[in-house]
Amino acid sequence: MRQPAVKLGELKTLITRAFVANATAPENAVSVATALVGAEIDGQIGHGLSRVPAYAAQAQSGKVNGRAVPRATRTAPAAVVVDAADGFAYPAIDLALRELGQLAPATGIAAAAIHHSHHFGVAGRHVERLAEQGLIGLIFGNSPKAIAPWGGKAALFGTNPIAFAAPRRTGPPLVVDLSLSKVARGKIMVAAQRGEAIPEGWALDADGKPTTDAKAALDGAMLAMGDAKGAALVLMVEILAAALTDSSFGFEASSFFDAEGAPPRVGQFMIAIEPRPFAGLAFADRVERLIEAILAQPGARLPGVRRLAERDAAKTGTLRVDAKLLAEIETLAKGAQ
Amino acid sequence: MRQPAVKLGELKTLITRAFVANATAPENAVSVATALVGAEIDGQIGHGLSRVPAYAAQAQSGKVNGRAVPRATRTAPAAVVVDAADGFAYPAIDLALRELGQLAPATGIAAAAIHHSHHFGVAGRHVERLAEQGLIGLIFGNSPKAIAPWGGKAALFGTNPIAFAAPRRTGPPLVVDLSLSKVARGKIMVAAQRGEAIPEGWALDADGKPTTDAKAALDGAMLAMGDAKGAALVLMVEILAAALTDSSFGFEASSFFDAEGAPPRVGQFMIAIEPRPFAGLAFADRVERLIEAILAQPGARLPGVRRLAERDAAKTGTLRVDAKLLAEIETLAKGAQ
Repeated sequence: MRQPAVKLGELKTLITRAFVANATAPENAVSVATALVGAEIDGQIGHGLSRVPAYAAQAQSGKVNGRAVPRATRTAPAAVVVDAADGFAYPAIDLALRELGQLAPATGIAAAAIHHSHHFGVAGRHVERLAEQGLIGLIFGNSPKAIAPWGGKAALFGTNPIAFAAPRRTGPPLVVDLSLSKVARGKIMVAAQRGEAIPEGWALDADGKPTTDAKAALDGAMLAMGDAKGAALVLMVEILAAALTDSSFGFEASSFFDAEGAPPRVGQFMIAIEPRPFAGLAFADRVERLIEAILAQPGARLPGVRRLAERDAAKTGTLRVDAKLLAEIETLAKGAQ
Repeated sequence: MRQPAVKLGELKTLITRAFVANATAPENAVSVATALVGAEIDGQIGHGLSRVPAYAAQAQSGKVNGRAVPRATRTAPAAVVVDAADGFAYPAIDLALRELGQLAPATGIAAAAIHHSHHFGVAGRHVERLAEQGLIGLIFGNSPKAIAPWGGKAALFGTNPIAFAAPRRTGPPLVVDLSLSKVARGKIMVAAQRGEAIPEGWALDADGKPTTDAKAALDGAMLAMGDAKGAALVLMVEILAAALTDSSFGFEASSFFDAEGAPPRVGQFMIAIEPRPFAGLAFADRVERLIEAILAQPGARLPGVRRLAERDAAKTGTLRVDAKLLAEIETLAKGAQ
């Protein structure tokens, strides 16, 4: 497939225009475009440009309110509720990050509950932005049902990512970012498109039986990473991201991929921690000591290495984009059909 | 093996006496005895009575300061540092729970960094105590090195438990409690004692090669649950529990099992969340809705079911205790040899 190289600035402008032409307020369009291009730069293409057509269709149909104005309410000295107002998640997360950036350095720890929200893309990027301000970040998000409960047979929970970031003395933060399914749902979708089998242990079919048939898996349920332990973490994330934010559970949320039905109304719970009140001045040195010890082992790797390599490669200022997708985004930018 | 039934009250008194007779202050002895008997009641015997002899030997040798007085310092409106002062972890955790129980309802979220600490036993019990006060609890603890970093060959991180608890409208809280190793180290120790093999994927030998030899595994490294994802979580816990509390990393900490050397000085990081500022009044109903949906699936199970069944069984007021261990504790209670 042809992959033209597009300048990053132009790409961001094009995507912004595509959303503005599809019932989205300019400031929201910029926030969404920044997040999607950022994901693409980091090689997280499942959360990148491929999302533009579905997002735009959802703004057009009203499943996402592209003109939503997220609103923050400080409900306690270290607590903020952010209403994403059925809009895109990214503007709400931008707001939550600003709030937590103000609160946590003063209180030591603070948290934001984001509700009436939508697909939040690369979880790690949000907490990385906290870490770029010197804060430790933790985020929990839920998503439409994909994973069966432990011992159960049908999808109930989302793939429910957890992300964590810690600032480093120099250079980019250390970022941990994982969805709690054994593999990304995208991998099963690709296998289904190609008519390929999937390994055992990834998924159940619609009857709750283990399957290696990718298409059957898409009609069934995914399995959690780490068996019972991972399944328990999925439940924890569902409680933090949805119950604690008064949002839809995975089994209540509509799809992020089509433009039909009610807004998904999933939630995100984000925690910001200022290291100083807990560790004094020792934190940065201690993190470096740990990383040294890890990297002293031949073969040992830190999480996020591939992501940072992709990000470095994009420093040329251009990104290769699938020609068909690019044409589709250009059409969207010309206005609703 | 003979297993006499002992009354719970008598057992707690006996263990308290065993510690008091071994260089431990009475209030610390009560805290430790309560935690160990509680673990035993919950069927968590690896963190129960079997620990008494090693703990007492460590208090005798000074590896643990049985007379330590933990001290709490509020360093920010939602932050408290608890110095366990090289004593047992439980009195420090009792203090952290009291502090968080005061802070979190006012601030929305609060956290305690516990440092110069020791083995903290059943992680889930500590956050369950927060949940019994209506708070959501999260705790992260590190432990002496057991798990290799991802791609590495030698033990570097602890088994680094994560525990989470959420209050329920009625009855005991929902508790998630998992160590991040694929299996409990105790399982490998039992296999080694019995001369049995262990399944592949549990551990590496001293050369960093996968092994099914339990003895070789004890000299090598354990593997994280969930492969690279689990290994990333282990790193996250090491940063939260040790770097953020200015404590020893797993590879710096001395053993919890012998009485030699310096104190282990591991750390714990505990977060308490008041649901109301984040979810309004909806939290309890939403948790029940989620649990209903899980239990509506045939075969689906909530975490902690076995633990609660064990706890119920102990409501007879007695506990069966290994006769040899009981005799050992009785000897300890008579005073240092």
